[in-house]
Amino acid sequence: MMTAIADHDSIRAVQWCGDCLRLLDQRRLPAEESWLECRSAQHVRDAIADLVVRGAPAIGIAAAWGVVLAAQAGEDMPSVLRDLRAARPTAVNLMWALDRMGTCIEAGADVQALTREAQAIQDEDMAANHRMGKLGSALIDRSSGVLTHCNTGSLATSGFGTALGVIRAGVAAGRIERVFAGETRPWLQGARLTMWELVRDGIPAKLIADSAAAHLMRGGQVQWVIIGADRIAANGDVANKIGSYALAIAARHHGVKFMVVAPSTTVDMATARGEDIEIELRDPKELLAIAGVRTVVDGASAWNPVFDVTPASLIDAIVTECGVIERPDTEGMRAMFPAP
Amino acid sequence: MMTAIADHDSIRAVQWCGDCLRLLDQRRLPAEESWLECRSAQHVRDAIADLVVRGAPAIGIAAAWGVVLAAQAGEDMPSVLRDLRAARPTAVNLMWALDRMGTCIEAGADVQALTREAQAIQDEDMAANHRMGKLGSALIDRSSGVLTHCNTGSLATSGFGTALGVIRAGVAAGRIERVFAGETRPWLQGARLTMWELVRDGIPAKLIADSAAAHLMRGGQVQWVIIGADRIAANGDVANKIGSYALAIAARHHGVKFMVVAPSTTVDMATARGEDIEIELRDPKELLAIAGVRTVVDGASAWNPVFDVTPASLIDAIVTECGVIERPDTEGMRAMFPAP
Repeated sequence: MMTAIADHDSIRAVQWCGDCLRLLDQRRLPAEESWLECRSAQHVRDAIADLVVRGAPAIGIAAAWGVVLAAQAGEDMPSVLRDLRAARPTAVNLMWALDRMGTCIEAGADVQALTREAQAIQDEDMAANHRMGKLGSALIDRSSGVLTHCNTGSLATSGFGTALGVIRAGVAAGRIERVFAGETRPWLQGARLTMWELVRDGIPAKLIADSAAAHLMRGGQVQWVIIGADRIAANGDVANKIGSYALAIAARHHGVKFMVVAPSTTVDMATARGEDIEIELRDPKELLAIAGVRTVVDGASAWNPVFDVTPASLIDAIVTECGVIERPDTEGMRAMFPAP
Repeated sequence: MMTAIADHDSIRAVQWCGDCLRLLDQRRLPAEESWLECRSAQHVRDAIADLVVRGAPAIGIAAAWGVVLAAQAGEDMPSVLRDLRAARPTAVNLMWALDRMGTCIEAGADVQALTREAQAIQDEDMAANHRMGKLGSALIDRSSGVLTHCNTGSLATSGFGTALGVIRAGVAAGRIERVFAGETRPWLQGARLTMWELVRDGIPAKLIADSAAAHLMRGGQVQWVIIGADRIAANGDVANKIGSYALAIAARHHGVKFMVVAPSTTVDMATARGEDIEIELRDPKELLAIAGVRTVVDGASAWNPVFDVTPASLIDAIVTECGVIERPDTEGMRAMFPAP
């Protein structure tokens, strides 16, 4: 493990053990590192639905292993796939991974072949993350400072991460000297998960209130904002965690560069523009209480969008495992990704 | 009280009772409305130091009444003034109010005269707030939406408020139809205090995560951002609660107007520019735990500036009781406020 720690890359939150899937319970971080051992597809389904595992790539990988557990138990595959799909109905990577497993099943794959497919999904994700890390960090000048948002690290993927993978690679290459993480209200993924990863992997970092980012940029401490993506439209507009758009505006105002890092499975060439992406509104209660303590007066209401859309015009680079698109637009996107 | 409620203005958090000062305990809001009865200057001093009362104007008013309590008890005035000054050493309004009381004492004022002076300080603050409310709301077109930050309302003043006073006046005049409040991490003054005031005074409002403001503006729901100020420099740069600067950048990006509302005592013509204002960094712990629950892994660090500076170039109007300065700059500021 020493090598991994020297690489700032020691965390594997989704681990296949041959007859069970071990999941690091992200609901309990950072207070506690506890592991859940899933021994059935139903158990994996519940773990996805209950947010034991989160992050689009990690969810897809976990679901693929759930299919393997079902095959080992001789379960009825169509209903297993249906149940797993329903665990988080809007997660694109979940559908993509289950489509891949479903195609194998239709081709008559046995347990061994399904195991190979799940392992391939996991290995390909890891390879994509390392490739993006290399491509993204090459864009960063030496001695730079970076700011990230939400959690896009080992906890959200097979390991290494997307935006956080670029940060791992950039730190290892001596390009990044300062790392800042926004706490990411209302769910605090930055505070709870990203800071846990960074401390755990020996990357010095500072947590900031989301609203302090512009003031931080003004002080010249940050040269790049690096975030992940939930969906990338055909024109390069990016839907991501609420707060990303505000960071992009502040970055442009200060001449700070803005990088989006996501696997090519996040690109949706069937969606023309960001305006076509529906933004999920979540329960206002998420803003009205913190850590179970009510912080806002009874009778108050809140507006709680989960995502926002950053227009391509504010993005300096989109990094996928297929390559880098600088100053993205429809033409640049089409050159790398075929139309649907 | 019906009239006051119809005016969306029923809250008086600092109340003089002839032989004691009643303070609404802001540490316990919104969970509980409890009052503290201060019967000595020492008691008032402790209440200011312990944040029972907060907001620059409210602190100054409370301290003035503390001086009256000391005079009633025949205490040694120089040491009372010294103690009160030390309660929150950086609060400009506290010094200003105590200077006024000190000038009276030097002129040989008796208890009755000191009572009149404290009452004058309180009444003048209320009059200034109503004047700013009128001036500020006149700038707002009918059917507008506004966004505010932190708490600048009745809780922070003698009553009515500064930025929140403009919102009260704008709602009463039918100019403002939608009110949004940022929760204001890390202290959550927006979530805890502003939402309490607005619900209490019957002004429909929605709480948002600070990082959702840019996305909100993009949707066209907000025409003005309206905030208070901790200090206004001679060139119109404004120091205010962390997050104000990010709102100003996002507002300009979307063509949303930006208004700063503060009494003239906040203007510091001896400070040439915002860059000359030292920004207080507070304990990183404020970001590492919420409501007493540790949310970030042990060993993590944080960067926690309390204020930021919004340059005058991003401000559309500074409103004081002396008048409105549109597109503020050194010339506009000098025309209204004499150099020191």
